[in-house]
Amino acid sequence: MNYPSILVEEAVNELSKFPGVGKKSAMRMVLHLLKQQETDVTKLGEAIIKLRTQIKYCQRCGNVSDTDFCNICNSIKRNQHLICVVEDLRDVIAIENTGQFTGTYHVLGGLISPVNGIGPSDLNIENLIKRIADENTTEVIMALSATTEGDTTVFYLSRKLKDLGVQISTISRGIAIGGELEYADEITLGRSIALRIPYQG
Amino acid sequence: MNYPSILVEEAVNELSKFPGVGKKSAMRMVLHLLKQQETDVTKLGEAIIKLRTQIKYCQRCGNVSDTDFCNICNSIKRNQHLICVVEDLRDVIAIENTGQFTGTYHVLGGLISPVNGIGPSDLNIENLIKRIADENTTEVIMALSATTEGDTTVFYLSRKLKDLGVQISTISRGIAIGGELEYADEITLGRSIALRIPYQG
Repeated sequence: MNYPSILVEEAVNELSKFPGVGKKSAMRMVLHLLKQQETDVTKLGEAIIKLRTQIKYCQRCGNVSDTDFCNICNSIKRNQHLICVVEDLRDVIAIENTGQFTGTYHVLGGLISPVNGIGPSDLNIENLIKRIADENTTEVIMALSATTEGDTTVFYLSRKLKDLGVQISTISRGIAIGGELEYADEITLGRSIALRIPYQG
Repeated sequence: MNYPSILVEEAVNELSKFPGVGKKSAMRMVLHLLKQQETDVTKLGEAIIKLRTQIKYCQRCGNVSDTDFCNICNSIKRNQHLICVVEDLRDVIAIENTGQFTGTYHVLGGLISPVNGIGPSDLNIENLIKRIADENTTEVIMALSATTEGDTTVFYLSRKLKDLGVQISTISRGIAIGGELEYADEITLGRSIALRIPYQG
């Protein structure tokens, strides 16, 4: 493509790196940006840079946080002996929005996926095992997507945690098989937490 | 929504201002950004800020440019007496990609749309009239989308330019009625420039 300006070309190239955004969508974004106030666009650019450069990860659960330990891990209102294992921060937000869960989280940062070259060592699993051993954890709830990757990860974790004397549950499969957790409606998702069932490895 | 971090919340809010991007898509973008290298994310943020703060508009044709006059207006290879009137820079890029046009452009920055409160005074029309009067223009090609707004704008411009003694053409309507110019395939678009027809106001 012949771009009329290097600035436009660079912005299109950078924006089209977002998943699902092609050159034409990126060009639409550029056009939108050119029509906005300078201060608003600067705010967007700075929010993006600050997000990546200033973000912290909770040293206990691995969730994103503005401090060394996240609000949920710091809260005395939460059951600190109950851990809900999730893929990423979108799942934490989704479960928090149901208002059905009063324990803590453990964010894996992904799911085991041999196809995509993601093995157990790429995920926040070591810390989970250490946590359970150190913290007198009573129950671990696996709240992972009902996909092959999710099932594989639950299977792997259940083997790893077997000897730690902790109750393992999975969220009940009210969620349609093949469904992504983050797109489940709040009632189904909340119920699947409330009606969790013991895991039979 | 309960966000685990103010940085995440701010980034989601800013990103969801893009047209067609909701909170969930914005959250996907945030997750993508968190997985990228710091330098890459900084590059994106800076490209966005630079785009808006450093962009210039060609003082002649109104297209975006890195300099006071754009490459096309500066080129001795282009027929400077032939003006192709387009809505925005995406149309310039689309027409340039056909390789069928050797004149210059005039970028209106929009189309007349009473529904959206866009009148002739909001567009780069004064400059077009001044240009035609000053520059010995031989022909003006209307390359606007085949929509009500496009047709209205062609009609308005043809009345305005009637007394300037310039030939007015529209691109031939090989483009499907109701179609957006930027999504036309290159062959159809190139042909519609080559086979342009005199405008009968």
